[in-house]
Amino acid sequence: MSTQKEIRLIARPDERGIGAHLFELAQTPIPSAKAGEVLIKQTHMSLDPAMIGWMHPDTESYIPPVALGDVMRSSGFGEVVESQHPEFSVGDKVLGMMGWREYFVSNGQGINKLQADMNAEMALSVFALPGLTATQGLFNIGKPQAGETLVVTGAAGSVGSIVGQLAKADGLRVIGVVGSEEKADWIVNELGFDGAINYKSEHLSQQLTELTPDGIDVFFENTGGPIQHHIFDRMNTHGRIVVCGMIADYTTNEPALAPNWIPMIKKRLTMQGFAMPDHFHQVPQLLEKLTPYVMQGKVKYRAHTLQGLESAMEGLNLFFSGENKGKLIVEL
Amino acid sequence: MSTQKEIRLIARPDERGIGAHLFELAQTPIPSAKAGEVLIKQTHMSLDPAMIGWMHPDTESYIPPVALGDVMRSSGFGEVVESQHPEFSVGDKVLGMMGWREYFVSNGQGINKLQADMNAEMALSVFALPGLTATQGLFNIGKPQAGETLVVTGAAGSVGSIVGQLAKADGLRVIGVVGSEEKADWIVNELGFDGAINYKSEHLSQQLTELTPDGIDVFFENTGGPIQHHIFDRMNTHGRIVVCGMIADYTTNEPALAPNWIPMIKKRLTMQGFAMPDHFHQVPQLLEKLTPYVMQGKVKYRAHTLQGLESAMEGLNLFFSGENKGKLIVEL
Repeated sequence: MSTQKEIRLIARPDERGIGAHLFELAQTPIPSAKAGEVLIKQTHMSLDPAMIGWMHPDTESYIPPVALGDVMRSSGFGEVVESQHPEFSVGDKVLGMMGWREYFVSNGQGINKLQADMNAEMALSVFALPGLTATQGLFNIGKPQAGETLVVTGAAGSVGSIVGQLAKADGLRVIGVVGSEEKADWIVNELGFDGAINYKSEHLSQQLTELTPDGIDVFFENTGGPIQHHIFDRMNTHGRIVVCGMIADYTTNEPALAPNWIPMIKKRLTMQGFAMPDHFHQVPQLLEKLTPYVMQGKVKYRAHTLQGLESAMEGLNLFFSGENKGKLIVEL
Repeated sequence: MSTQKEIRLIARPDERGIGAHLFELAQTPIPSAKAGEVLIKQTHMSLDPAMIGWMHPDTESYIPPVALGDVMRSSGFGEVVESQHPEFSVGDKVLGMMGWREYFVSNGQGINKLQADMNAEMALSVFALPGLTATQGLFNIGKPQAGETLVVTGAAGSVGSIVGQLAKADGLRVIGVVGSEEKADWIVNELGFDGAINYKSEHLSQQLTELTPDGIDVFFENTGGPIQHHIFDRMNTHGRIVVCGMIADYTTNEPALAPNWIPMIKKRLTMQGFAMPDHFHQVPQLLEKLTPYVMQGKVKYRAHTLQGLESAMEGLNLFFSGENKGKLIVEL
């Protein structure tokens, strides 16, 4: 009997951070598809910032944490290798929550069949969590209007880069906040953003003022950090703040405080946090909204691919260092 | 020719705070109503926290500041004493923005005729800014549902006391935050709130936990101050935060920071600031919503009445000290 590798979470993140000490690598038999099931060979796994949250024993989060001893949760891309399910055939390319393992048996629920010519990078970078998150947050919460100004943090990240390109395609002025000159160059010269700010710069406030002469109408927050205060200060009347991620504060014991709420009243701002599990029932509508932008070539992406299942364990740390260039993907 | 008194704003609030040094008392001729106009004798003026904002030269606020040299802006209750306007008759009771003066000439715009038996206290405490603000914020932003828990700060204030009573009438558990034992007693024993917390207590967090065993679904914020963090910490998933006032921070140079936004995501919270000038076109609908509660005796109020036009100048300070018991009204 052949075996496969899988990685289980066996401890909660502690002061040592995230790494191999939290996980256990196991060999298990490759399962078979029973009646009504498919066996999928996963070829690419997605690493997403939300996974940091799933590792913590936080009962307040939007989906339950991964239980200790369970295979680590993740979404991925794969190919059907056995099918006893009427809607799937051997060779189908699929997307779904498969976890950190090489083979996955499913009854088909939550597994989405892709076009035959879809490659793994585009599927995981655009049509999976990042693109759905960008579409939901930007259009349904941010409510962008042509001529307005949008600022997005984590602008070279998997969600931020799509948010900015969609807003740009809709006629907004788009400024991105990033953590390196290379990323600043990429979002401006490759993605077409109107401007970029490196949050490590010493003149954040001045740069932001120069790049947003008409103030800011939509603030799409992926990171937190001190620049949040500068962006908040420049919000326009009736501005919208989309709170999607706070990666800068996820692992601190005392998360940084946020701006005083007086401008919420004076400028009648709206701020809304969201998480995709609330919106999975809207995925068909979100894809319907997103797909035309992609088909018209308005959504570029780049994948940062790690090699081998085991690379996922340390790979998550790239979200904190910001050293990844593009959507983090693990190729199996 | 008879004269009337009026009070003009002649300086911006400074480190000496608010008081007579910012104003000038003047005697001017009582005007006459020309064709299409009415002359109103104002008998009661309303003092509202928003007036503090109108005194500051803050271009970001929702309505322009009162210009230096102009009569101080305020809403009030009065009686038509001359009419050349087809829709008003001598003796009509009216509500409108009349300013700190005894007589006011209007073309009728923004002047609302009241039922003949409406008294000034009820008109200014319930059917003017406080009731409209409570109705807009609670129903259109807070979206309360029977069985939920609402916490309102400034709960014995003109807006907060109405918010709590409307929510209670709709079947919510209602907890009010106040600044004295007398006010705590009033909102619980007279208004029927389920509980009260004196924000000067040493055990805020523990009291709040005990009084909101099922967490908090709607947070109606009128004050700011440290208890904001405790309330925010207890928000439930999909909770709504209505930001209506921040009186604790209006006069500080460095307003206190607010809670980190991570729970906005984890709990998918919505926070919205509002100000009534955005909603003046909705006043008929707001009154339609509010009136049945009042008619059914579900909205009690109390007025704290100062005597004489000049008392308004120092009277505004009661918003900071919290010493007023009920809606602040100046009787002329």
